[in-house]
Amino acid sequence: MSEHQHGYSEHKDAHLRRLKRVEGQVRGIARMVESDQYCIDVLTQVSAVTGALQNLALALLEEHMGTCVVDAAKAGDQEAKEKVAEASAAIARLVRS
Amino acid sequence: MSEHQHGYSEHKDAHLRRLKRVEGQVRGIARMVESDQYCIDVLTQVSAVTGALQNLALALLEEHMGTCVVDAAKAGDQEAKEKVAEASAAIARLVRS
Amino acid sequence: MSEHQHGYSEHKDAHLRRLKRVEGQVRGIARMVESDQYCIDVLTQVSAVTGALQNLALALLEEHMGTCVVDAAKAGDQEAKEKVAEASAAIARLVRS
Amino acid sequence: MSEHQHGYSEHKDAHLRRLKRVEGQVRGIARMVESDQYCIDVLTQVSAVTGALQNLALALLEEHMGTCVVDAAKAGDQEAKEKVAEASAAIARLVRS
Repeated sequence: MSEHQHGYSEHKDAHLRRLKRVEGQVRGIARMVESDQYCIDVLTQVSAVTGALQNLALALLEEHMGTCVVDAAKAGDQEAKEKVAEASAAIARLVRS
Repeated sequence: MSEHQHGYSEHKDAHLRRLKRVEGQVRGIARMVESDQYCIDVLTQVSAVTGALQNLALALLEEHMGTCVVDAAKAGDQEAKEKVAEASAAIARLVRS
Repeated sequence: MSEHQHGYSEHKDAHLRRLKRVEGQVRGIARMVESDQYCIDVLTQVSAVTGALQNLALALLEEHMGTCVVDAAKAGDQEAKEKVAEASAAIARLVRS
Repeated sequence: MSEHQHGYSEHKDAHLRRLKRVEGQVRGIARMVESDQYCIDVLTQVSAVTGALQNLALALLEEHMGTCVVDAAKAGDQEAKEKVAEASAAIARLVRS
């Protein structure tokens, strides 16, 4: 898929900050495992990171629907159908992950 | 909670490798956002990382139940009750994250 | 919200059949609990019903996006924005339930 | 698996009431679809039912771990290992449904 202006471009910096934080949290979990921290405390951090990633995904999804899907709807029914199917598959992956 | 031998100690290296991979995947997602990759492709990677973290959590949980919870059950009913409640709260966080 | 032709109208019968099946499965779980069936077998059925409901929700969501959201996109930017926000909130509830 | 006293027996009536409520909610969703209610309102109810089923599953799981798994731990290491593996598989199904 060629690079083009995406819905998330407007919030790119915020997403990058979020990802930086998640990256740091993952390293933090590794340090906990490395230093034999209590299992439940490690699990609590893993759930926190999973939740942060879900929030990121939901934000990206809303931005995608508000630009790419809406633009496709304006372009024509076939484009709209394809974009809706694609977004629905992404939502299904998110729901089941 | 003081550090002590945990259920996951036996698989510590495998968990650390997994976490290293997740850390790399998160950096990869940041590069995708940085270079304006297509939203759906970014979302696909976020779901992959969420899934990998869930697998890690399920492994940690099984190891925790097989050691800490089982040990508590052998130690006495009150210890068992506390460990089961603690594990159940961790499972609820995992299910809802 | 007034009744009007929805995306799911086209598949209404299929959805109603699905819901009938889910209703029967829930009654089946009650019979299992009533007759003291093994906890894990009951849990397996609960997960099956949760999965069936998720599939229903994903189908309804796709149909909604393909009609109501697309129609709103054609109608104007403000309508599109509201529908996308509404759909995103529904997706978030689904992801977190 | 033969019927025997399970962890949930103590809360059987509460679980049966919950299941009755869920059954009624599922019928309610069918009525909404039957009468062409707005998609998002139907989705909201589906998420509510999924959430109620998850709460039931988490309660059953805690009761199972507090009785069947704890009893197995007291009985011996092999029994404990099997029960923990079985419970972990049920947790994985719950997390992924």
